[in-house]
Amino acid sequence: MSTAFFFVFLEGNFLPILKTPIDISLLYNGILEGNLSLLSKAITLVESSHPTHRQQASELIDCILPHTGNSIRIGFSGVPGVGKSTLMESLGLHVLSQGKKIAVLAIDPSSHSHKGSILGDKTRMEELAKHPNAFIRPTPSSGILGGVAFATYETVLLCEAFGFDTIFIETVGVGQSETQVSSLTDVFVLLTVPHTGDELQGIKRGIMELAHILFINKIEQDETHSRHAIDAKTDLVRASQLLPKTVEFWTIPVLMGSALSGFGMEILWKTIEQFIEEKKLHGVFFEQREQQRMHRFYGILHHLLVEKIQRTLSQNKELQEVLSRVKNEDISPLSAGNLLLNKIRF
Amino acid sequence: MSTAFFFVFLEGNFLPILKTPIDISLLYNGILEGNLSLLSKAITLVESSHPTHRQQASELIDCILPHTGNSIRIGFSGVPGVGKSTLMESLGLHVLSQGKKIAVLAIDPSSHSHKGSILGDKTRMEELAKHPNAFIRPTPSSGILGGVAFATYETVLLCEAFGFDTIFIETVGVGQSETQVSSLTDVFVLLTVPHTGDELQGIKRGIMELAHILFINKIEQDETHSRHAIDAKTDLVRASQLLPKTVEFWTIPVLMGSALSGFGMEILWKTIEQFIEEKKLHGVFFEQREQQRMHRFYGILHHLLVEKIQRTLSQNKELQEVLSRVKNEDISPLSAGNLLLNKIRF
Repeated sequence: MSTAFFFVFLEGNFLPILKTPIDISLLYNGILEGNLSLLSKAITLVESSHPTHRQQASELIDCILPHTGNSIRIGFSGVPGVGKSTLMESLGLHVLSQGKKIAVLAIDPSSHSHKGSILGDKTRMEELAKHPNAFIRPTPSSGILGGVAFATYETVLLCEAFGFDTIFIETVGVGQSETQVSSLTDVFVLLTVPHTGDELQGIKRGIMELAHILFINKIEQDETHSRHAIDAKTDLVRASQLLPKTVEFWTIPVLMGSALSGFGMEILWKTIEQFIEEKKLHGVFFEQREQQRMHRFYGILHHLLVEKIQRTLSQNKELQEVLSRVKNEDISPLSAGNLLLNKIRF
Repeated sequence: MSTAFFFVFLEGNFLPILKTPIDISLLYNGILEGNLSLLSKAITLVESSHPTHRQQASELIDCILPHTGNSIRIGFSGVPGVGKSTLMESLGLHVLSQGKKIAVLAIDPSSHSHKGSILGDKTRMEELAKHPNAFIRPTPSSGILGGVAFATYETVLLCEAFGFDTIFIETVGVGQSETQVSSLTDVFVLLTVPHTGDELQGIKRGIMELAHILFINKIEQDETHSRHAIDAKTDLVRASQLLPKTVEFWTIPVLMGSALSGFGMEILWKTIEQFIEEKKLHGVFFEQREQQRMHRFYGILHHLLVEKIQRTLSQNKELQEVLSRVKNEDISPLSAGNLLLNKIRF
């Protein structure tokens, strides 16, 4: 077996370095025994696109599977500047005070172009980061180890096996990552800030449709009856009422508060718990989890296939020629697709 | 080679029956000689999911490729009841009067559940249907021959080779089909009707973002200064200004008219031609067509792969068992994906 070394260099930090082969039982035991550094290493393993690591990641995930599923998985979205990190810290501290254990996963598709955001987030969640029952995992969207979105589902499973009962998953409001995250969370919270105008606080309609809870941030307790708070709320209530109802039994609540002062965190958390409760009461909680498993299976299969095709394409001159013939209208896309398909055997 | 028979029974009509093998040169010559019944047969061939037909469709499309590309491809969208058929007929007759040749393709994802819509559309476009320079192809979204969306791109190519210089592609406003259609058209027209309220005439924001031209239907010439016409226009102009600009050089025009009386058809057509002109002037017309070819290639490849996997899955008990193990949380999606991938050879 070949030996490979992987490094991820993030703003001055090295994430765990992997060697091949990995000791799977070491990682397995480490996770169940609450070893954070081994959890971190296991996440790096499932993020790796190295074929041997993929195989080992599969084994590890299958081993920990009986210990997974016991958390609330919460997605947070909102445009940059809306205060996501501050809110996750503030809400996180509130949740920790109730004796819970929190893992925060950041999916940041802009991390490679906007250097600083990853460490920045980590710094901003300083209090949460140093709490013994919290774990913050910054994840690059690209880089040596390949796409991060690939591994988020598996990272959640690892965190659950470790004993985290509350998982925060952060996205930035660009649309695609929100769809991905909503396909692996139980509840989706959309953050916004009050603005004037009709722009719905810069929220894309498509993202709004995924939300179960809307939270207007940066409003202090004594401002809740101010003009801009009421306007913002009215706008959002109106907008949310126009949306098709995705969850039959749930009317999307519009909350307000301030992550900075902590105002509104209690009601936000209660609302999240209430939504989970309602989902279980209506029998859709576990049904949706099952759907998410199947969704993840097809997602992985598609991802792995595309990866395999691209690997093959880059090595195969004949296939590369086919591609350039499609480009030059020398051969039809249909014909090229058929040609390539015939090279694939099951 | 085995012989297979295919029937499509649509509201009392049989679409062409295919035998295997098909005489490709017969279809090729027929299309170039302007034989409508052979064009229709060729479309049925490219819509077929039979592996032999797929192969033959590839050959046919490659043969006609040098004769394609010489049309304006126009997508029309709007919710049911907005008057799409009436508008396509009305605009179509206007375009025909300028000596052009029109093919109308209807993608109707609801056709199998709302029986009658296909024949209904055909009946509604009666005048267009009997014009010697027009061709209307109703296409079922599902049925014996498999998904229609699969073949729309190839159907456009066949129609172009036949000599149609204007292609209308109809969709219903459900979102997914619009994205598909906008990926194979040069210009996308969104229809709406005046309503009161802030619902933006029931248009989904995602669909709105694809539109190059907005057309408010059901407004007669003497009503253009009426309250409801002005309100509808103001709403749409405002909404379109909030959208990110997808085409740099183009400000989305909001037109109004009446498909029933023909009012507004001239300006709508002029605007379509102007947009195409601008695209050519800015060098993006052929660039986009090239992108669409590559997009189509990856789309076909994905489609064919999924089809192949599903065929394999349905025949393979071992793989079916893997799926049910994912469902029952006996094995992780990652592990199942890897397992299946290892069975695929390039």
